[in-house]
Amino acid sequence: MAEDSIVIIGGTGDLGYGLALRWAKAGRKVFIGSRSAERAAKAAADVREAAGEQSQVEGLANSDAVLRAWIVVLAVPFAAQSETIASVREKFRAGQTVVICTVPLEAAIGGAPTRTLGLWAGSASEQAARNLPDTVHVVAAFQNVSAHAMQELDQAVDCDVIVCADDAEVRVRLRPWIEAIPGCRYVDGGKLENARIVESLTAFLIGVNRRHKVQASGIRITGIGSAR
Amino acid sequence: MAEDSIVIIGGTGDLGYGLALRWAKAGRKVFIGSRSAERAAKAAADVREAAGEQSQVEGLANSDAVLRAWIVVLAVPFAAQSETIASVREKFRAGQTVVICTVPLEAAIGGAPTRTLGLWAGSASEQAARNLPDTVHVVAAFQNVSAHAMQELDQAVDCDVIVCADDAEVRVRLRPWIEAIPGCRYVDGGKLENARIVESLTAFLIGVNRRHKVQASGIRITGIGSAR
Repeated sequence: MAEDSIVIIGGTGDLGYGLALRWAKAGRKVFIGSRSAERAAKAAADVREAAGEQSQVEGLANSDAVLRAWIVVLAVPFAAQSETIASVREKFRAGQTVVICTVPLEAAIGGAPTRTLGLWAGSASEQAARNLPDTVHVVAAFQNVSAHAMQELDQAVDCDVIVCADDAEVRVRLRPWIEAIPGCRYVDGGKLENARIVESLTAFLIGVNRRHKVQASGIRITGIGSAR
Repeated sequence: MAEDSIVIIGGTGDLGYGLALRWAKAGRKVFIGSRSAERAAKAAADVREAAGEQSQVEGLANSDAVLRAWIVVLAVPFAAQSETIASVREKFRAGQTVVICTVPLEAAIGGAPTRTLGLWAGSASEQAARNLPDTVHVVAAFQNVSAHAMQELDQAVDCDVIVCADDAEVRVRLRPWIEAIPGCRYVDGGKLENARIVESLTAFLIGVNRRHKVQASGIRITGIGSAR
């Protein structure tokens, strides 16, 4: 598993596909996972077409994708999170980093995307951590970036990426991946439990998009210089 | 009650005093309320000293201050919110706007200022709305601005002010008051229930301050142009 590689489970969805595009464009090697190997291969072909033929991108069934990199991004809708984790749980290797982008929007149960569900674990990321093997490192990130903005390759993404994980060393592993995306800035978000706040902020930004009739509002933290 | 006047209940506290300073500096008339009329008078004298002798600022007991303006800002710590509202509840006149700046930090019960309490009403602002007369308009605002930054009169406040209230007409009443503070931008935050998210963001920013060893981190919403 090479250090410049990343796996995106749910890489055919809006956010996952956008991340795949950005990282392929930046010259990283991307493994797109999907329940369907065919849809994954199609998404990989689309990435190559959009980000350039030199793109290193491969589409695979989720269970085949998981072990292709040390960092595995889970970019599935909240309603599919537990099932997806269960389907690949046995495949993880000790020491892998799993990045949770999920937001428990009320839309998952037929409600509004401008509200979040209250979860017993506190957040989708903490819920994922309970369902993943103890031997992987769980990080929450990318919840606030607009999937729409991610897919507009000719424009920078005007949004900070807040990274939460219990271990500071684990948080900082995401930094080069965030800085590979033009306009994104790494912000140290502290412990995984802070994902409760970061996730809810996504519901707020969806409301901002509606009120302002835009597709890609985002967030910047001010007063921290260049962030660390 | 003049349109260019504002009442700040809790105007001797860090945030309330900062708001008083900024509005006095901007030429608005400010009535500082406190449980103690003496402390309020002292704070008013301090504002005059810092913001200039031409400042129109007066210190009063809370119950005397409440009716001095159509907009009343409640800038008390969460632990004092219910008691403060109960002490002035009977004084309000129908049609007044009450601005809630409170955040239910866990620190109110001896916990961490980087976490919020779960409230039955959903947020400190919604809790306040339940305790206030039905005839006043409740708005949530100013939770995310650093009290420290507010008091640094020679520097702009690098932070958006997200305003939540059920009625859009009520939200926009705050706009001129926000734009009177250099660096602050009005952002339409939608319904009062969204204060749940805005309040929790304050706890997050307190964590950011600690991790980055700064006193005044803030937030900007991106992708919405000049906000409306």
